[in-house]
Amino acid sequence: MSDKGNLIVLSGPSGSGKGTVRQALGRYRNNLYYSVSATTRAPRPGEVHGTDYYFVSREEFEQMIEANELLEWAEVYTYYYGTPRMPVEDALNQGLDVVLEIDVQGALQVKERFNEAVLIFLLPPTPEELGARLKGRKTDAPEEIQTRLEWAKREVKLLNRYNYLIINDNVEEAAKRINSIIEAEGCRPFCQCLNSNWLD
Amino acid sequence: MSDKGNLIVLSGPSGSGKGTVRQALGRYRNNLYYSVSATTRAPRPGEVHGTDYYFVSREEFEQMIEANELLEWAEVYTYYYGTPRMPVEDALNQGLDVVLEIDVQGALQVKERFNEAVLIFLLPPTPEELGARLKGRKTDAPEEIQTRLEWAKREVKLLNRYNYLIINDNVEEAAKRINSIIEAEGCRPFCQCLNSNWLD
Repeated sequence: MSDKGNLIVLSGPSGSGKGTVRQALGRYRNNLYYSVSATTRAPRPGEVHGTDYYFVSREEFEQMIEANELLEWAEVYTYYYGTPRMPVEDALNQGLDVVLEIDVQGALQVKERFNEAVLIFLLPPTPEELGARLKGRKTDAPEEIQTRLEWAKREVKLLNRYNYLIINDNVEEAAKRINSIIEAEGCRPFCQCLNSNWLD
Repeated sequence: MSDKGNLIVLSGPSGSGKGTVRQALGRYRNNLYYSVSATTRAPRPGEVHGTDYYFVSREEFEQMIEANELLEWAEVYTYYYGTPRMPVEDALNQGLDVVLEIDVQGALQVKERFNEAVLIFLLPPTPEELGARLKGRKTDAPEEIQTRLEWAKREVKLLNRYNYLIINDNVEEAAKRINSIIEAEGCRPFCQCLNSNWLD
């Protein structure tokens, strides 16, 4: 039905459940293109170039920045991460809806470069719940968890720059709501071709 | 989930199928408030005051216009028709989503008075299809049908003032898409309360 796809940015604080919800979304829609990030970090065992990440050198990454080939990028602990623009634009032009799963700073960078992007903020019901999830991952020290919680509260203040808010109290419900958002965004007048006889 | 309901305006040319799609929508959602119009025409056999229409006198209707108690109104063949504002606002404040089923002129009047209104334009796939539907209703003379078709083409030019376009090639599909739009609009950040601990 759509002529051109929509760019859907699924974003939210660290620990909000972006990855899990994105996986659940795959059970409701099979016609989405998931963007693959570029990174300068080394592949971990089992990670595949082009599927998990595009693994590139620092020089290649910096050339991509120079050439405006990234929709967003950041340097995190000496490694670069970013979203290559071309595969996203190709998929949109083919009429596919594209999903980016990125952090809040990245989402706002995308919105600056690509104003039609649809920004979805995913948030656990309470900070206490987010703290419990971060603790459950067992990857962060207590002071690191505290830092992440404070970051999350600062990110919540940016909510007014988002199009939608999903309170992630239930993964399936969150995925269903995102599915409805993608359906609805496909019904925008500019996404659809009118039969030319209407325009006589 | 919503704190305050959304005002959903289902609109489109005469013969676009607004009534049929609205009925189908009732099979997907049972928590919608359907606005009842006011009119100065006499009740037809079986029509119930407060259910089919609010039947009022010309004097009462003109008082409602004066007092800004109508979200939109028009005079059609010596009768007034309009949407009373109060029941709509009461339902929205109770957190219900409200559906108005009105013509294109009325929809644009509502948008002027109520900027948060969500405008959905319902359109048959082609003018030929609209002509066939109008002919099938057997209520209009051929020259009347021609006039309605020309009106419809003029109304299509107002599409850029609408939030969504539904091509009504299939009633169930159209109702499902409207259901997704209502779901999605309920996920707007301003529709939802955040747990106050997020806002410390």
